[in-house]
Amino acid sequence: MTMAKPALVTLLTDFGTADPYVAAMKGVILRACPAATIVDISHDIPPQDVTAAALVLAQAAPYFPPGTLHVVVVDPTVGTDRRILAGRFAGQLFLFPDNGVITFVAETMAMQVLAVVRAAESAGTASVSMTFHGRDVFAPLAGQILNGLDIARLGPQPSTYKTLDLPRPIEQEDRLIGRVIYADRFGNLISNVPAEAVRRRWLDTGRLIVSCAGRQVGPIQATYAHAKEGEALALFNSMGLLEVAVNRGSAAQKLAAGVGSEVIVMEARHERQ
Amino acid sequence: MTMAKPALVTLLTDFGTADPYVAAMKGVILRACPAATIVDISHDIPPQDVTAAALVLAQAAPYFPPGTLHVVVVDPTVGTDRRILAGRFAGQLFLFPDNGVITFVAETMAMQVLAVVRAAESAGTASVSMTFHGRDVFAPLAGQILNGLDIARLGPQPSTYKTLDLPRPIEQEDRLIGRVIYADRFGNLISNVPAEAVRRRWLDTGRLIVSCAGRQVGPIQATYAHAKEGEALALFNSMGLLEVAVNRGSAAQKLAAGVGSEVIVMEARHERQ
Amino acid sequence: MTMAKPALVTLLTDFGTADPYVAAMKGVILRACPAATIVDISHDIPPQDVTAAALVLAQAAPYFPPGTLHVVVVDPTVGTDRRILAGRFAGQLFLFPDNGVITFVAETMAMQVLAVVRAAESAGTASVSMTFHGRDVFAPLAGQILNGLDIARLGPQPSTYKTLDLPRPIEQEDRLIGRVIYADRFGNLISNVPAEAVRRRWLDTGRLIVSCAGRQVGPIQATYAHAKEGEALALFNSMGLLEVAVNRGSAAQKLAAGVGSEVIVMEARHERQ
Repeated sequence: MTMAKPALVTLLTDFGTADPYVAAMKGVILRACPAATIVDISHDIPPQDVTAAALVLAQAAPYFPPGTLHVVVVDPTVGTDRRILAGRFAGQLFLFPDNGVITFVAETMAMQVLAVVRAAESAGTASVSMTFHGRDVFAPLAGQILNGLDIARLGPQPSTYKTLDLPRPIEQEDRLIGRVIYADRFGNLISNVPAEAVRRRWLDTGRLIVSCAGRQVGPIQATYAHAKEGEALALFNSMGLLEVAVNRGSAAQKLAAGVGSEVIVMEARHERQ
Repeated sequence: MTMAKPALVTLLTDFGTADPYVAAMKGVILRACPAATIVDISHDIPPQDVTAAALVLAQAAPYFPPGTLHVVVVDPTVGTDRRILAGRFAGQLFLFPDNGVITFVAETMAMQVLAVVRAAESAGTASVSMTFHGRDVFAPLAGQILNGLDIARLGPQPSTYKTLDLPRPIEQEDRLIGRVIYADRFGNLISNVPAEAVRRRWLDTGRLIVSCAGRQVGPIQATYAHAKEGEALALFNSMGLLEVAVNRGSAAQKLAAGVGSEVIVMEARHERQ
Repeated sequence: MTMAKPALVTLLTDFGTADPYVAAMKGVILRACPAATIVDISHDIPPQDVTAAALVLAQAAPYFPPGTLHVVVVDPTVGTDRRILAGRFAGQLFLFPDNGVITFVAETMAMQVLAVVRAAESAGTASVSMTFHGRDVFAPLAGQILNGLDIARLGPQPSTYKTLDLPRPIEQEDRLIGRVIYADRFGNLISNVPAEAVRRRWLDTGRLIVSCAGRQVGPIQATYAHAKEGEALALFNSMGLLEVAVNRGSAAQKLAAGVGSEVIVMEARHERQ
């Protein structure tokens, strides 16, 4: 990495920001690569919530410059034989546990290289205290990559990688029944209903109606501009998932809904529930 | 902007730090200007609380180097025809929605240039999903400014700009009745009582007495040094507002007060309430 | 400081991140040293909790590059005649109030230089409003140090410095009784029981048994690898303190324990309590 190309790395963890863990990772990275610029994506992922991390990663990563390294340490299977993978998707680099956290990135950014990090698990195990993988495995690897190590040389190409086994929407006679899988600070509700599952079933999505937490939201709109202030609406978001929102308001509040709430898509003529 | 002058930008939002929104803004800025240094002022402004944002901005911005660009996205009127303004105050740059968030900066830092950002609202509207102005409008504009675009060329000079219509202190026979408008983590209480309103009314402020939430605080002091440890005191802060604090303690706790609590200034001889 | 050596500074405070105080400190530092890289260790130390700050500092600082300046402003005795010290420990620089916050750093990193900062208290006192030491004293000093000022020249070497007077474990006939002094986000529990106090008393630590909050945790393990998933264990952490944890789980939750909970070390044969 030449000086003209600043080494940019992002961190996404569930460590919170009160404890010393994120700072220790940053120290290790800066020790390896003093010129690195480190950006926090989030450290407030609910502990061990790989789905939330996967959604947050896919909504932030695409906006970073080519060559950015994204390090993800939301890792409930640490200590098992879960692998660490390094990948290049759409020109950006990702270092992550093979637990499905790459799911939405992989769906929306083209994969170019993927490598199983060889022997990563062995780092630090000589130490008396517990290996803290974020600091002792991921951060040193990040430093090496920032210093120019080609990720394809980190290890062999895997034959496959894990993706999230999200609860699939249930297909019933006249409807698809999904669930909210992420609610943000503004009360926007992301569901597990993929656009393609809807389009595969109904040719004319214009005649569909969406409800959430038992309350009707209305048809699937093309853009937010179709809802008036304070009105709820449904649309397919940039990850291809059905999202329920309120124009300049909180869908979570207006609909009394949150993670786990039912999201139903059905034909308008059946709208009677 | 030459390379010798690092591009420094601050962000002030109500986005929180759990969701991907702040990171997406940073990605867009770094894509435009890889050498930028980005500093968070706060992302924990209570949602849509323009008054809190205005107070926080005015207490942080003056300490940054000349040429720093401050980007404010606390923007409850997004989606209306509210304008985006770019201004230079006391040698620092500000990019902000015209909703009053600049109020206290404008009162304490001399305005040099102000421009209505032309056509800013149109950015991103071609996208299917909702335009996220922080990422799709403010961040690209910040990138352009960091790359040297003169803010005076962003658009025409406005004839006016919005300031906060703070609740005015009520004038009664012998007293001014104001309210707490901001409480910080340490329990310091900032009120809506301007120094000038007090000085306009009473020539001799030395004979005034302040109470807050029904408890007497004492006279208006020149400095904090006048209160003993654990004692409450009132003074005019650097924004010219009456503030109630406790020397090495929490006024919020000691007085059981918070945002909305009454702050009364009256002549000492009437102190009987 | 040459350009080849980036100026790296960390901040550790109890200011929180909602208010403008951390940003104001960063502004002052960047005004003095525009090329500085600023890393947050934590701003969410419980207000005025010097013990927590001391533990967090000692767990983060050692991972940073040599020459890093760590600025600590957890300072409940601000306003008294408490001194500000500057020290070099194991090649890293520390600027801190002399209130014991350096305790665990001093135990684990070799001290090389220590200086009482001369006249630091006088900074800013001319101002009408309260001196905010983080911004008006610590940040300007940090800027001077980042710009190359030798800390040995800041003032005379002190004959001593404060260390935390942690509650000492109580020695009873067959046991040591300590307390949890820090619980992290993952539910790991750090106690005030030093490894050396245990080893001084019992030659064979292999026959000891630990309990926490009245529940048995088991023997003191050499590494985390000795506990199965979901099982509690005790070990001496990198600061030489007895720590109770659960392999891939939360000891705080499993044992219903937290700061203040009793941690007992006793011989296995007496294990009957």
